[in-house]
This record gives sequence, C-alpha cells and structure tokens, in this order.
Amino acid sequence: MFREAIRVLDCTIRDGGLINNHDFDLRFVRETYKALSAAGVDYIELGYKNSKKLFSDKEYGPWKFCEDEVINKVIDGIESNAKISVMADIGRVDLDAVKLAADSPVDMIRVASYVKDVDKAIAMVNDFDSMGYETTINIMAISRDQGPELDEALQQIEEECKSHTIYIVDSFGHLYQEPMEYLTKRFKQHLKTKEVGFHGHNNQQLAFSNTIEAIIHGANYLDATVYGIGRAAGNCTLELLMGFLKNPKFDIRPVLELISKEFIPLREKIEWGYIIPYAIAGIMNEHPRAAMALRNGEEKENYREFYESLTTTANA
Amino acid sequence: MFREAIRVLDCTIRDGGLINNHDFDLRFVRETYKALSAAGVDYIELGYKNSKKLFSDKEYGPWKFCEDEVINKVIDGIESNAKISVMADIGRVDLDAVKLAADSPVDMIRVASYVKDVDKAIAMVNDFDSMGYETTINIMAISRDQGPELDEALQQIEEECKSHTIYIVDSFGHLYQEPMEYLTKRFKQHLKTKEVGFHGHNNQQLAFSNTIEAIIHGANYLDATVYGIGRAAGNCTLELLMGFLKNPKFDIRPVLELISKEFIPLREKIEWGYIIPYAIAGIMNEHPRAAMALRNGEEKENYREFYESLTTTANA
Repeated sequence: MFREAIRVLDCTIRDGGLINNHDFDLRFVRETYKALSAAGVDYIELGYKNSKKLFSDKEYGPWKFCEDEVINKVIDGIESNAKISVMADIGRVDLDAVKLAADSPVDMIRVASYVKDVDKAIAMVNDFDSMGYETTINIMAISRDQGPELDEALQQIEEECKSHTIYIVDSFGHLYQEPMEYLTKRFKQHLKTKEVGFHGHNNQQLAFSNTIEAIIHGANYLDATVYGIGRAAGNCTLELLMGFLKNPKFDIRPVLELISKEFIPLREKIEWGYIIPYAIAGIMNEHPRAAMALRNGEEKENYREFYESLTTTANA
Repeated sequence: MFREAIRVLDCTIRDGGLINNHDFDLRFVRETYKALSAAGVDYIELGYKNSKKLFSDKEYGPWKFCEDEVINKVIDGIESNAKISVMADIGRVDLDAVKLAADSPVDMIRVASYVKDVDKAIAMVNDFDSMGYETTINIMAISRDQGPELDEALQQIEEECKSHTIYIVDSFGHLYQEPMEYLTKRFKQHLKTKEVGFHGHNNQQLAFSNTIEAIIHGANYLDATVYGIGRAAGNCTLELLMGFLKNPKFDIRPVLELISKEFIPLREKIEWGYIIPYAIAGIMNEHPRAAMALRNGEEKENYREFYESLTTTANA
C-alpha cells in the first residue's frame, strides 16, 4: 500500500525557529533529533545557513547560522539514518564559509525563492550541487504567483537546475484541495525529471489535507513538523502524516513521546497553531505579518476589527 | 461562483453541549443565536430532544431537552431568518411531548442513527414528518460501517423515508479525502431524490477539508460549529467554512466577533480541539471514549502509552 518514493522532511527546528529567533537549546535539539531519527524521518532540517556578517549572533540563536561544528554537537552519539538539511535564503549566505559536502555533516541545502528570483535560486543550488550537496528549490508564496511566469520558471528549472526536488510552498496557508491538485499537476507537467515536494502552512487547518492532496497527485517530498510547530499557524503535523503514511519504516511512537515531554511544555511558552488572525490571513491570501503584529499587541483578540482592517486595505 | 443549494447548519450549542452536559446559560445561547443569525446561517441546532423521564434535569442543562418554552426564550426579540433544529436519538425521545411543528419554534428534527438502526430511524423521521417537521437522518460511525448493509440502508431510506437530507457523519474523525469522495458518491448514487449532508469531526484536522471534499462531490448540507467547538476534537469550524463559501448571503464578521467575546474565554474553561489522544483515536478509527477518559485522568499527556494501549487492545 505504501509508495516507496515518498520522503518525509521534518523542519521542526528550522520552521519552529522562526518563532523564537532560532534559539532552541542544544538539549532540546538533540532530543528532537533523537526522536525523529527513531521515527524514521528521511531528512531533518535544523535551520538556516545565514551569514554572521549579515545577522548578529547576539540577536539570533545558533539555528540561524547552522555552523557545522554546532550540527556535529547535535548528532554526536545518536544513531540515525536521517540526512541533515539546512535552508538558504537568496542573498543571505556567505558562500565562502560553506565547506564541501564531504567535509560537512550537512547533506542537503534547500533554497527558498519567489518565482521572480528563480534565476538566482538556480545559480545558487547549482553551486551547492557542485560542492556535493543534494539541493531543492522551494517556491514560496505560490498562492499568489500563479501567472505564466510560473510556467516559465518551472521550465527553466527543469532545463537548467541540478536540484532533484522542487517544492510547492503555500506560504500564506491559502490553498484548498482543488488549487492543490491543479498546482501539483502543473509542477509535474514541467518537471519531468524531478520530484515535486510540498510545504504547507496551517492557517486554515489545511496543511495536512493539502499534503495528502499533493501525495494523491504525485508529490513525493513532504514537509512536516512535530505538533505542527512553525511560524504563525504552523505546518503540517508530523504525527498526523505518520499516521497516514503506511510505509513500515516509520514509527509514530517516538514522536508522540517527544510531544508529551518537550512540545506540550514548549507550547506554554511560545505560540503557534489555529489562531483566528492567522486563519483570516489565510482566507484572504495575505502574508501573516499583520496578524503576527496583532498577536504581539494589546488587541490580540480583536478579530472582527482585524478582518475589517484587511478588507479596507485590500479595497484601497 | 457559489452554489445556491448549499445550506449551512450550525450545531455549536448542540455539539458543544456534549462537553458541558448541555449547560450553557441563556445569555450565552442568545448571543450565539444572534451572531449566527446575523452571519446568515441557514439552520441553528440548539440541542437534543431527550425525554425528562430518561434523563434528570438536575444532571443535565436545558439543551439536553430543548423544550419549546426554553427555545422561545432564546429567539425572543432577535431578528433571524435561520431555522431551528434539534437532534433526536433513537429510543430517547418522549414522542407524546413533541407538539406539532405549527405550534413549535422548532423547524427541523435530525435523527442520529447507526446503520443497523436505520429501520427505527426511518419510522421516527416519518412520524416527525407527519407532524410537519423537516427531518434528516445522520448516519453515524460511517468510517466503520461501510459493508453492503450500508447500501441496503441507503436504498431503503431512498424508498421509504421522508427526510430531505441524509448525513454522512465521520464520528471518529477518521476519513481522508479519498474515502470522503468515495462515500459521498456512494450516498448520492442511492439517494437520487435527496440531498447529502456532511458532519465531520476534527481529530485529524480534516473536518474542514472533508467538508470541502463533500461539497466537491455534491453534498449540500454542511455542519459546522463556532471555533470548532464540539466533543473531544470538535468539528468543522464555521469561520473557515464561511471563508470558503462564496455565497454573498453569509457574513463572517459576526462569527469573528462572537469568537473574540465568548469562545476565547470559554476555551479557557472547557477543552476541545487538536489534542493528541483524539488524533490517535482518529488515526486508529476508534471512538474517542478512551481518549476522553485519558484527558480526565492524571496521565493525560502520556500519549505514547495511550497509543500502545490501543494497539495492544486491537491486537488482542
């Protein structure tokens, strides 16, 4: 019943880090890495490969930079078949500081890109490819960028880019099943020699069902996070995805234990999940920026006013 | 873009009442009724029509019985185009205490039934029909009862039953999109002269997406609750459904305001939503009974042990 080609990438530490300035302590990251390895996750993403010349390590924790020495401390002594992934934003990486894959604990580098920046993304992943890394391009804000430039970008990726997988990223948590089906088919139509991946956001409680929809229509690379942790509404939950997938290599139990011990207490300290302003942003196909600002202010439960402020802006 | 035939039924007070012994105070119910009416909801379900001979009104609040006089106090002075619905369980109604529809504020009575009890359900709804009520049959636990007896029951309903709508009820929150598509088509294949409805449970964060799936395949009666309130994991959220439906008669704003003012404070007092033991029960196609017991005990966060206890039972 299971599809051999499916790969699960857990981005708990990377996407969760967007809530706490990438400042998880080493013990927490090791516990997470250990449980995910026992659960049989294929890739574990620990953070961003950002340059310390551009961001201060006083302001951000270690998972903003993912230096090889720090990653070595995470994996030291823990049995694992999982590969290590990090994410790279265009224009924020110090390429000279990236070692060859053979000398690094990192296996894969994913480049997040808007459709308009796809030339830069291709150049970047091809550089990483030449250094021995697996790569992907993750195309963000896909619910907004569906014009003919998307086809052009996908065709160019198919022809010029060394990445094995291209992700659909529903950055705004806006997509329903029918657009998911349409987009997955559109990606697969251009990307004849590559895999399609999906990274959902859970604003409308659709990250998991959209992941299923992507699977139905042929996506094989699936992002998820423990207990759905991630910026704003968070992501597809790893535990539900494991409950759905029938591949016997996966074991949900270490994930359940990790949630009990680490994520229930963590959720008391930092906020993510089904929260109305993020749902509104998702419904309206908006970046969660305004909703995050609302949640950090005094009037964080003023949902109606927030909704009206967005519709007024949209009409202006 | 919208489908004229779609009807939204809000069962906030009815399904939410399963968490608090149907003991919402009158002010709360009136505020909810007022907001739902302003939002343009088609039906508002207030509770169960249970017999006071079978249940004590010392143990249960007024929405366990839904007496006409109490309902009249809810609707008094509030402008509304919504119809009032109540639910009836087989064998728990005092039929002599039910007035003719013409003398009652109630417009619709829904009978919840397992597949095996469908003869009783048909007899019951036909009685209510003869008294002037709209009726539906809501077929529970559908993720378990998919054998040939389901086709027989549906065919019998089509031939003998006066209800205008038959609901698919995913009692255990177990269904994914593909089984939803299959079941909706199977219902429609038998029920040529009736509408199909859907009532989802949110154990796996799929109640909303399954509602969309039901819509795609032709279901027109849709259950939802404010902020997803309902027993255990709760239901499809009304606010997300309103964000999805394009019918201009719906207005999401009164619902958003109601959540801010009434449901955020309420959620501090009673529990529902995405909670791991309910997710596990959904994944395993189990009644939430054991998960509810766990949540009421000392070891409510022991997810791994709970999962293992269910798999052990299943293997016994």
